This record gives sequence, C-alpha cells and structure tokens, in this order.
Amino acid sequence: MPPLRVEPLTPAAFAPFGEVIAPDAARTQYAVNDGTSQRFHALGHVECDGGAPVLSIFRAQPRALPFAVRVLERHPRGSQAFVPLSAAPYLVVVAEDPAQPPRCFLARGQGVNFRAGTWHHPLLALERESDFLVVDREGDDDNCDEVALATAWRIESLS
Amino acid sequence: MPPLRVEPLTPAAFAPFGEVIAPDAARTQYAVNDGTSQRFHALGHVECDGGAPVLSIFRAQPRALPFAVRVLERHPRGSQAFVPLSAAPYLVVVAEDPAQPPRCFLARGQGVNFRAGTWHHPLLALERESDFLVVDREGDDDNCDEVALATAWRIESLS
Repeated sequence: MPPLRVEPLTPAAFAPFGEVIAPDAARTQYAVNDGTSQRFHALGHVECDGGAPVLSIFRAQPRALPFAVRVLERHPRGSQAFVPLSAAPYLVVVAEDPAQPPRCFLARGQGVNFRAGTWHHPLLALERESDFLVVDREGDDDNCDEVALATAWRIESLS
Repeated sequence: MPPLRVEPLTPAAFAPFGEVIAPDAARTQYAVNDGTSQRFHALGHVECDGGAPVLSIFRAQPRALPFAVRVLERHPRGSQAFVPLSAAPYLVVVAEDPAQPPRCFLARGQGVNFRAGTWHHPLLALERESDFLVVDREGDDDNCDEVALATAWRIESLS
C-alpha cells in the first residue's frame, strides 16, 4: 500500500480543492462594530445549485494512524465547509482525480471549504471526539458520488 | 438606565429571533461516514436575498460589564450566524421591535443564527478575545439598518 505524505494546510496548496477558513488566509480584513471586532472577510464562498445552504454540526470520532484511504466522495451541486469547533488537529484528504494519487493535509485550527465537485475523504478527526460546523447544501436530490479507489493509500503518521 | 436581565440561551426562548447552533438544538440527527460521525442536521438555515453567502471570521475584543445597550442593527436581506470558535461565553442582545425592551441571552458553547431582519446588538464577546465563524450575505447593496435606542439598557452582570 503506497504511503501518502502529510502536508501542511496552506491556502496556496489547497487552492485546487477549495478555501482555507482561517484569519491568516484572508485577502480582505477590516474593523467592524466600532472597532471592537476585526472581520476576516469572505474566507469561504458557499456554492449551492438548487436546494438551500444549511448549518449543521458533525461530531466526529477520532481515527487512528496508520490509516488506509480507500474511498472518496464528492458533492457535485454544492460546496461543503468544515470548521473545527475545538483545537484538535484533523486530516483533509482530497484529489483532483480519483485515478491519481490523493493529497493529505494536516489542519490545525483551520477550516476548509471544499469547492462543489471536489473529491474528498470523509472527515478524519484525530486525537479525540471533535465537533465541526458544517456549511453545505440541503436538497431532495442526490448530491453525493462515491468511489472506491483502485489503490489504497496509507497515512502512516503526521510527520 | 433600566436593567436588562440576562437569560439562558435556549432554542425555544430564541425562536422569535432565529436559531441556536448547538447539537442539543437539533430536530434531526443521524450517523454519517460509516458511523464515524453524527450529523446534527440543519441547525441553521441561511437566508440570502440576492448577493451570496460567505464564510468569514470575526475576531472580537471582550466587553466589560456593566455594559450599556444603546444601539441595534439589522440585515434585512440575509441571515447572519455567529458560531464561537472558542469556549468563551458571549452575550446576544436582540429585539423584535427597537421601541420595546430588548432581550439578552448568555451563550455558552452555542452559536446563533439571526433570521433576516432581526434587530440585534453588535457582537458582545466576554472574558477574552474570541473568534467567531460568521455566515452571512455578501452584496454590493446596503443591507444594514442601525437604530439608536430611545432608552439605553444596562447589563449589570451575568447572573
């Protein structure tokens, strides 16, 4: 099983897949509320083709390493954001094409917003049960494709 | 200056103003990702009349008590959600009508989603600098009304 290298999550590295939700990823920031708050503006853009955007919480059980990446999924009709509500790190596995090697990013105090149609692995919390705010599309139609990878990839450790 | 009582934040008490974003506010929950996550579904509904929904982060400076509530604002064309990214408590001041007494809720580990047009006070973080994920509407048009209250209201303490 070939190894999958764990990369740091940066806006530039993640750009092919979506957006990083963190203050230092902001292109625009400004003071609001008479200067009592700083707004790091439009870090993520919600895509919603039909249906409606909703806010949900995912409570994720932690996964143990080493971990075998065997499946990916995508939501063709909407973006999907995960923003951690705790400080626990988590892994973000994505692919531009499931026939090519995926990439694995380590998120620390950062959220991600998968662009509509981005192939990604289901949530990979680490260390402990972790809550995430999720912003995605609610609709009656099917909006999830899943694929079993021809090759499984092994995440050995975080380093 | 009349006192404003601080109430616990519950979905029922907050219903005239919007939604509480917390697992125990869920009407629907189910397992996802092969049972590794629990989805607390559609806690908040994003309203966006024109424009587009975006994810931002507000970094709020803490306010000291006692605090005088003198202004309210509303966004007629979109909902606005605040979800705390830290465990620090904060206050949520809202009014159905700015000519009537506002209400003040203490949020602990809970987010709120103001329904479009809900009068609310700018963010009132407590204790320490606090980051919030904000889901609201980006647009070129004006989407903020502000009002100075005829009577200021005093938040004395959290109890």
